[in-house]
Amino acid sequence: MRPFTYETPAARIVFGPGCAERVLAEEVERLGARRVLVVTTPRHTSLAASLPVVATFDGVRPHVPEETVDDAVAVATWADADAVVCVGGGSATGTAKAIALRTALPIVAVPTTYAGSEVTPVWGTTDGARKITGRSPLVVPKTVLYDPALTLTLPATTTAASAMNAMAHCVEAFYAPGANPITDLVAAEGVRVIADALPGVMADPAGVTGRTGLLYGAYLAGSAFAAAGSGLHHKICHVLGGAFGLPHAETHTVLLPHVAAFNEPAVPALRTRVAPALGDVNVTDGLTRLAARIGAPKSLAQIGLAKDDLDMAIKLVLEKDLSDNPRDVGEPEVRRILTGALRGRLPAATAPSPTRGEPR
Amino acid sequence: MRPFTYETPAARIVFGPGCAERVLAEEVERLGARRVLVVTTPRHTSLAASLPVVATFDGVRPHVPEETVDDAVAVATWADADAVVCVGGGSATGTAKAIALRTALPIVAVPTTYAGSEVTPVWGTTDGARKITGRSPLVVPKTVLYDPALTLTLPATTTAASAMNAMAHCVEAFYAPGANPITDLVAAEGVRVIADALPGVMADPAGVTGRTGLLYGAYLAGSAFAAAGSGLHHKICHVLGGAFGLPHAETHTVLLPHVAAFNEPAVPALRTRVAPALGDVNVTDGLTRLAARIGAPKSLAQIGLAKDDLDMAIKLVLEKDLSDNPRDVGEPEVRRILTGALRGRLPAATAPSPTRGEPR
Repeated sequence: MRPFTYETPAARIVFGPGCAERVLAEEVERLGARRVLVVTTPRHTSLAASLPVVATFDGVRPHVPEETVDDAVAVATWADADAVVCVGGGSATGTAKAIALRTALPIVAVPTTYAGSEVTPVWGTTDGARKITGRSPLVVPKTVLYDPALTLTLPATTTAASAMNAMAHCVEAFYAPGANPITDLVAAEGVRVIADALPGVMADPAGVTGRTGLLYGAYLAGSAFAAAGSGLHHKICHVLGGAFGLPHAETHTVLLPHVAAFNEPAVPALRTRVAPALGDVNVTDGLTRLAARIGAPKSLAQIGLAKDDLDMAIKLVLEKDLSDNPRDVGEPEVRRILTGALRGRLPAATAPSPTRGEPR
Repeated sequence: MRPFTYETPAARIVFGPGCAERVLAEEVERLGARRVLVVTTPRHTSLAASLPVVATFDGVRPHVPEETVDDAVAVATWADADAVVCVGGGSATGTAKAIALRTALPIVAVPTTYAGSEVTPVWGTTDGARKITGRSPLVVPKTVLYDPALTLTLPATTTAASAMNAMAHCVEAFYAPGANPITDLVAAEGVRVIADALPGVMADPAGVTGRTGLLYGAYLAGSAFAAAGSGLHHKICHVLGGAFGLPHAETHTVLLPHVAAFNEPAVPALRTRVAPALGDVNVTDGLTRLAARIGAPKSLAQIGLAKDDLDMAIKLVLEKDLSDNPRDVGEPEVRRILTGALRGRLPAATAPSPTRGEPR
């Protein structure tokens, strides 16, 4: 067993269908909060009825623009809020985290997608085209309420993309810089749970059992990602999202089997732990089959990357620090991965190849 | 999947052979500590050489007597300590926790046995014959250094008993009040890791690989126990230890298969998850075989319980709140379990029986 360091923030997780309506007020009171700022999108405001709300900020926007944060912080200050309750997907959680980073207000998070951000110390905002990210214990929600009932109406395409984003967190946790035996354990379970639940949810989006499994898998994915950190796959996704406006979660779905195929020879656990959790003999086939079952997009071309963008994308990816990837990755490798993903063509076989450091 | 609430304190775990000598000073500095009180037994004081020590308390005693805590707190106050570093088994960790409960000083723990207490919010002291316990976030060590190198000289009998204590934490995590899917996952892995490592360690106590596995298993056990809490098995053990002075860890070894045999019909996961992790078809056989392989005591009589103590032991166990056990337990059941354990005779078969609430 390899040596490791594993750091996790304090967490209080409440999980179960109907829990948000039933215990949100109680959980807010538990923190001693009396003046709540609700951060959400307009469709989720009804949950706040039971809370001591002093203000509602429903101007949440994707990628958490700094202007939005300025506005929300102004509201929090003006209303003298003593806690933030966020209800929604990654953007609502992200806005609450950005508020907490500046104000140190405690957060109670009620996620309604599979983003997983509610259990990580990672925050991110955008200033124009520039993405700013960091890690801080201030932004970790004190309490997270996972209520599958709130996810029953999540549209099928968003569901598939968001779930595959969670899947990417799990897969990448096996070779990200902070990977350790605990993140392996949690991530393998996340893969299993998501792969089991997702096809059923696509067939019956309002089924509570499937939605419960998927939300649980998203929680596991977020937990593994929080400790393991991000690797090659997420770095490429950030370039594609940031510079070319590709949709975050769909990009994950398309790219994941390509990066996994590339890293599989250097990361035995992808074959020994992730593939069985996907019910397949290798991780690439497992991911591809799952994507096909849920009708996910197969190529970056389908979701908006132009062939002419390829060289620029490769250049931007290579500007990132890729030195912690378990398999050496330079221009030819990035080009191979991105060309394959652009066309939706996976390498025929994943032959062993020189690895960096000790294989895991 | 059943609804659940899962609460974990913040944790920083550093794990690996040699890590204590290598990074203890760095980890203490990381907390901003400049004036360290070292709490330990005389044989571990050398580790403190690299630290800014203002005082050493090596008067650690089993069961953490309140007088010992008074003395240690007086030393901490006199020396104006700003952190506690504890090196040793459960008693050293327990003393540090009792100090932290009164002083709010941060703890860096370096466990040298498999007690698991270093990752739980549970503290316990004794006032004469009275055992006082509680839970507080104040007592959770900020950082834990798991260094298998420090466990190489742990005597074989202590090793076996301490490891089976950790095993009991894992098994009981499947039906303790706070059991949830995460504690199931962690506890099943703990069972697997401990069962894999323990026989090898008994054969080669100074082997680093086996010791590494065992210490990792103890960490998993402590984590599962921290969130799941204690159940029937631990409640009986506390009675036997408190009122009859039976040795803590050995009592676990003897009693565990008896309580597991009793609960198995009401807790399917004991058969579906724990037994396979033990490499057996049922949990009782798995535990009994493991205990036999390591030459553990088989009966409470062997470790000091007199036949005449039986009625009093049963009475004291029944004074505890046993209502959260998944299978109804009254006088006849406690008598059956304790009589079997006294004699070292397990029930021949574990027939299904009425259960309380939903089986898990």
